[in-house]
Amino acid sequence: MTKDIKLRLKDVSSSNPGNLEAVFSFGNGHFGVRATNPIESNAVEGTLVNGFFEYSLITYGEAAAYYPKRNETIVSLPNLRKIRVFDDGHGEFTHSKLVDMQLDLSNGKLVEEYELSNDKKQTIKMNVTSAIDQREVHFYGIEYAFEAGTYKGDIYIDKSFVLEEAKAEAGDDIDDPRKTRELKSIKREVVATDDLSQTIAISTAESQQRIEITAYGFNNESPLTKKLALVDEPKVGYGFIVGEKNETGDFAKEDFATIKENSASFWHDTWQNGEVSIAGNDELNLALHYNIFQLNQATGRDGKTNIAAKGLTGPGYEGHTFWDTEMYMIPYFIYTNPEIAKKLLVYRYNTLDFARTRARELGVNQGALFAWRSINGEETSAYYPASTAAYHLDGDIAYAIGNYYQATHDMDFLKNYGFEMLLETARFFREFGTWAKRENKTVFEFHTVTGPDEYTAMVDNNYFTNRMAQNNFNLAYKLGLVLMEEDPEGFSKLGASVEELESFKDIAERIYFPFNDEYQINAQDDTFFSKAIWPFDETPKDKYPLLLHYHPLNIYRYQVNKQADTVLADLLFPETIDDDQLRREFDYYEKITTHDSSLSRSIFSALAARMGDMKKAYSYFSDTVRMDLTDLQGNTEDGLHLANLGGSWLSVVQGFAGMQVTSAGELKIIPHLPIEWDGFEFRIVFNGRLLNINIVDGKTTIKLVDGQPMNIIVNNKSYKLEKATLDILSKGE
Amino acid sequence: MTKDIKLRLKDVSSSNPGNLEAVFSFGNGHFGVRATNPIESNAVEGTLVNGFFEYSLITYGEAAAYYPKRNETIVSLPNLRKIRVFDDGHGEFTHSKLVDMQLDLSNGKLVEEYELSNDKKQTIKMNVTSAIDQREVHFYGIEYAFEAGTYKGDIYIDKSFVLEEAKAEAGDDIDDPRKTRELKSIKREVVATDDLSQTIAISTAESQQRIEITAYGFNNESPLTKKLALVDEPKVGYGFIVGEKNETGDFAKEDFATIKENSASFWHDTWQNGEVSIAGNDELNLALHYNIFQLNQATGRDGKTNIAAKGLTGPGYEGHTFWDTEMYMIPYFIYTNPEIAKKLLVYRYNTLDFARTRARELGVNQGALFAWRSINGEETSAYYPASTAAYHLDGDIAYAIGNYYQATHDMDFLKNYGFEMLLETARFFREFGTWAKRENKTVFEFHTVTGPDEYTAMVDNNYFTNRMAQNNFNLAYKLGLVLMEEDPEGFSKLGASVEELESFKDIAERIYFPFNDEYQINAQDDTFFSKAIWPFDETPKDKYPLLLHYHPLNIYRYQVNKQADTVLADLLFPETIDDDQLRREFDYYEKITTHDSSLSRSIFSALAARMGDMKKAYSYFSDTVRMDLTDLQGNTEDGLHLANLGGSWLSVVQGFAGMQVTSAGELKIIPHLPIEWDGFEFRIVFNGRLLNINIVDGKTTIKLVDGQPMNIIVNNKSYKLEKATLDILSKGE
Repeated sequence: MTKDIKLRLKDVSSSNPGNLEAVFSFGNGHFGVRATNPIESNAVEGTLVNGFFEYSLITYGEAAAYYPKRNETIVSLPNLRKIRVFDDGHGEFTHSKLVDMQLDLSNGKLVEEYELSNDKKQTIKMNVTSAIDQREVHFYGIEYAFEAGTYKGDIYIDKSFVLEEAKAEAGDDIDDPRKTRELKSIKREVVATDDLSQTIAISTAESQQRIEITAYGFNNESPLTKKLALVDEPKVGYGFIVGEKNETGDFAKEDFATIKENSASFWHDTWQNGEVSIAGNDELNLALHYNIFQLNQATGRDGKTNIAAKGLTGPGYEGHTFWDTEMYMIPYFIYTNPEIAKKLLVYRYNTLDFARTRARELGVNQGALFAWRSINGEETSAYYPASTAAYHLDGDIAYAIGNYYQATHDMDFLKNYGFEMLLETARFFREFGTWAKRENKTVFEFHTVTGPDEYTAMVDNNYFTNRMAQNNFNLAYKLGLVLMEEDPEGFSKLGASVEELESFKDIAERIYFPFNDEYQINAQDDTFFSKAIWPFDETPKDKYPLLLHYHPLNIYRYQVNKQADTVLADLLFPETIDDDQLRREFDYYEKITTHDSSLSRSIFSALAARMGDMKKAYSYFSDTVRMDLTDLQGNTEDGLHLANLGGSWLSVVQGFAGMQVTSAGELKIIPHLPIEWDGFEFRIVFNGRLLNINIVDGKTTIKLVDGQPMNIIVNNKSYKLEKATLDILSKGE
Repeated sequence: MTKDIKLRLKDVSSSNPGNLEAVFSFGNGHFGVRATNPIESNAVEGTLVNGFFEYSLITYGEAAAYYPKRNETIVSLPNLRKIRVFDDGHGEFTHSKLVDMQLDLSNGKLVEEYELSNDKKQTIKMNVTSAIDQREVHFYGIEYAFEAGTYKGDIYIDKSFVLEEAKAEAGDDIDDPRKTRELKSIKREVVATDDLSQTIAISTAESQQRIEITAYGFNNESPLTKKLALVDEPKVGYGFIVGEKNETGDFAKEDFATIKENSASFWHDTWQNGEVSIAGNDELNLALHYNIFQLNQATGRDGKTNIAAKGLTGPGYEGHTFWDTEMYMIPYFIYTNPEIAKKLLVYRYNTLDFARTRARELGVNQGALFAWRSINGEETSAYYPASTAAYHLDGDIAYAIGNYYQATHDMDFLKNYGFEMLLETARFFREFGTWAKRENKTVFEFHTVTGPDEYTAMVDNNYFTNRMAQNNFNLAYKLGLVLMEEDPEGFSKLGASVEELESFKDIAERIYFPFNDEYQINAQDDTFFSKAIWPFDETPKDKYPLLLHYHPLNIYRYQVNKQADTVLADLLFPETIDDDQLRREFDYYEKITTHDSSLSRSIFSALAARMGDMKKAYSYFSDTVRMDLTDLQGNTEDGLHLANLGGSWLSVVQGFAGMQVTSAGELKIIPHLPIEWDGFEFRIVFNGRLLNINIVDGKTTIKLVDGQPMNIIVNNKSYKLEKATLDILSKGE
């Protein structure tokens, strides 16, 4: 298991404070704490609580019917790490030099060293140790240890909250759609205070939410303001309780040891089931562990919250959840911690009423259309060509449901949540699509849609969308039959019938897929190839990402991809494409893909690995796995790229290990080892089993760590997996 | 000529005050005065000055690169017609009953009768006569005549300005895109006042414009406040000077007689050259005259101003100019008053720098893209799918330039304005379009565009757009050759060369036109026919216009037209289509057209007439010509539908008379007389001639009123037209 894997300052290429805040941030699914410098604050400092947002009105230059009326923005709460340190002449140590940071990924502990100075240039040392509780998810602890430097006198510390006003007016333009907006309807107030603790409340005027945060000295011994003698090398520690109104009062204050233990035991369990490691490349191994660490930290675990595009590491994208969850992040949880995957899908289930309403607003009288971007499930996107038009989201959710069920056979989920969502999304697609004639065949089509590639909008028959819809219909049919057998009453209650299931099957079989005869590849959409190719040769490097530098109409009229689109469908449905076509398709679309989206490289890496193109697979992986450590997209300070964190796991497990589940429900791997590595190893939870899979040059070793015997297909040959370790030798890898 | 044609209250179906204000409004191209009730004000009262606007910031829910940053809104100025009337007990006559209104279209005089009452229910009569000066376009005059009713005492009048504050904040959402927004950055102040006059100034903070309005008593005998003895049946008259800062001081105050004379002589001349009348149907004859009257009133005549979508009759569409000018309104002026047509095109020329900048913003490095909606030429549209994407505007302007030149051979225009615009629009299309392969042919295509039909957006190869671009290339080529001959230096100065002209010709010949094989008609775009037809049967009547009731994505995924699109191209380019195909095309597109745009019916009328389908031609014409008198679109109160006013002239002259100019430059008519009419007659100015064309059953009579002999083609036979009247007998009309 993961031991002593630590992220240090030297492992992070940008030392811009905003970047470090995000990279070294803590989270436990309920709330997140950016690793702000405790002395010198930054613009995006603070604490984010999953699901805690405020509404603001959306203003349109020209509005139209059924545009979303209000926005949702995650609320930045006060910085818990802030400390004020004074010398004995009332001077303050306002300057700080960061010496080192060290994030222990094995047990979730952050250690920092600072050198502080006052205006007289006198210095002291401050070491900070912090952890977030991963079990009792309302707790965070931080400990400051001081040592004399050139200053040797007493110091005075102040850990009271600083309640600043919001910085700007709501409704300000955001020119970069990946950032967030400021709010002015947030109230911050101190609600209780005594020597040893202080409680503040933050409430929102429009969404009517309230969060309380209590700061307290550990072990009832540290008041919030205190005099310390440096000769003693003093330590002071504070705990924080972050919860909804009245909730904080329900918790017995924890000491720091408990917080650290709860963190360490959580990470032990998490790595136990979800370990993935690379041998022979420490840098990538560290990055991969880091990504999985942060993916876990960001993920809501209560069925009411989800994963924001930036997790709890920054306010970028306003804290909204996108299709990223189902397509890039849920796979990791399905195969390592399916209970969490279930909670994330239950979150979607809880938004079904919003989704039904939205479908009606789009003129579809049956079924549900989930929100493209939202915190609570209400559609908030103000630019429909790259949001509402991305109807594939319904199919993405269905895809995740299908995979979850296949990997768990969780009948409780199917009965109470899963099938209803499959049914409602299939009903949506059935009414949204249309029958048409193509070369004398009757086919089923989808018009005026936007696929994953947001550099192409409002087209007909986006291949990816059609494929996801087909899968949605197939799943509704197949799992509908299962439910009809297992829970006929529940099945009927949903108004479903065998005739309806057969209507889904019938449509699935006749969905149209555009194909380009000239290149013999799947076509991104009906008209994609009639457009000119983007003038890449004339595009300077500083004009990427294109979306910040070119008018949408300029981008849309060219063949240019922001991210994997048709080839993502190839990755998701390996049985739909042969090797030769995959190669042609990869080559064609790769040339026109900018990877301006952080959701792109991981897919290209995984596909290249599947094709055995290890050079490309390794190169894309190397970029994708270190994306936030190298600030590859240039905006990590707004928060980590959560989908890409999950994407790097996909690259390893579904790419290099070639893991898939066959249509017959069997686990299958086709390992491809990059020559740069000695090997790689990962753990998988699948239908109650825990597997450890180790791949080195020429040999794949599979161990059934826990659970009943099962079959596994390795390189197209089936093996029976029992308690003994299975060694499979292979050639040519 | 038009004599004693009057619009009365009974001719207008809606007596809603806002509607009457617009319908009976005055304008002279420079400013407009809504016919507000002088006693009881309404929400949209006031005065509009052509080109007098204020900027406000556009706020986007999600902005992107090169979205317009600021809006332009025509400024509502104080109501000039307001009068306060008091009884001798300080009671005010605050109630008014409109008895009649009568707008004399022959000389531009408005006469109104009111019965006023005070709170004691005592009444007096007030007759109002007003006129706007059509020669000295800064003047407006109004005269009030009072008679005793149940009240017989003295009255006190007050004609001082009432300077109200603006009503709401800028930036408010407009849910109906056809309305306007309120502004808060307008300053209104009294700058001079004495017994006999008062001058106010209205200035804008952002656009830095200023207008002064002076009110004065006629003949230096009516102070702004005055006591009148009703026994004398008193009359008081006031003039208004409306001009830019300092400008009003430059005018000698006019008396009412001069204003009325200038109005009458203008209308005499206008009808002299532009008469069009229908015999045997007084209602439609009146409506047609009314439309032409209002079209003239709205039109800027100085080369710096244009025609707003609502003219100067209301603040709808914020006072912006659209393609409506070139495609629906300029034709009337080209063939009746080409000097005005020239001024309107010079307005476009004066916006070329904005248009060049806009082209660059759209990623096109050569040429110019004119603003879809604007007052001063700067693009202000906040919804690009139905604005910037309507690239056809460039071709529409080119089309108008071509027609103007063909009808005038105005070399001054070609040298100084026309060719440069043709060149810049052709250059735009050349770089904007792309070469592609279709069935082994190399063709030139245009991608991600929106045609006239705003219920279909961002498609490839919109037939109309491609046809307009082709015409644009052809015109640049042909008129480029003319200019090269006439003004080689000016030609070279524009960077033009014979090689460049040939590049235009080459592209024009290879432009791709989508065609539907199944129906054997021109296809609206590459994918139009793969969409399902809008569920018209399930759409209640109160859900029209669709744009106010359905999300754009809902509308866009169906075959449904807001207005004439492909068939408009058929009307504009009669030589591109044979009768059979036209019939098929008309029938197909008619079925899916909602006419939710006021720009639609006139086109369908004209095309039906050309096909000899007189029933449809008459029916569409009947609707189109009375659109504002019947409040057909339900929003005449926001202002008249200017394009439709011009459209009704198109229906008669280009539809019923079948007038066109052949590619050889010859005038051609193919008359079709509706059986409901005894006949119709119109005048045309063409290359220095003035023709009078009279069509009755079986006979077309053409008189060369003025100018040199010329050829004319009637029903495909060529005639030499000399001073004597030409009678042409025909059958079957």
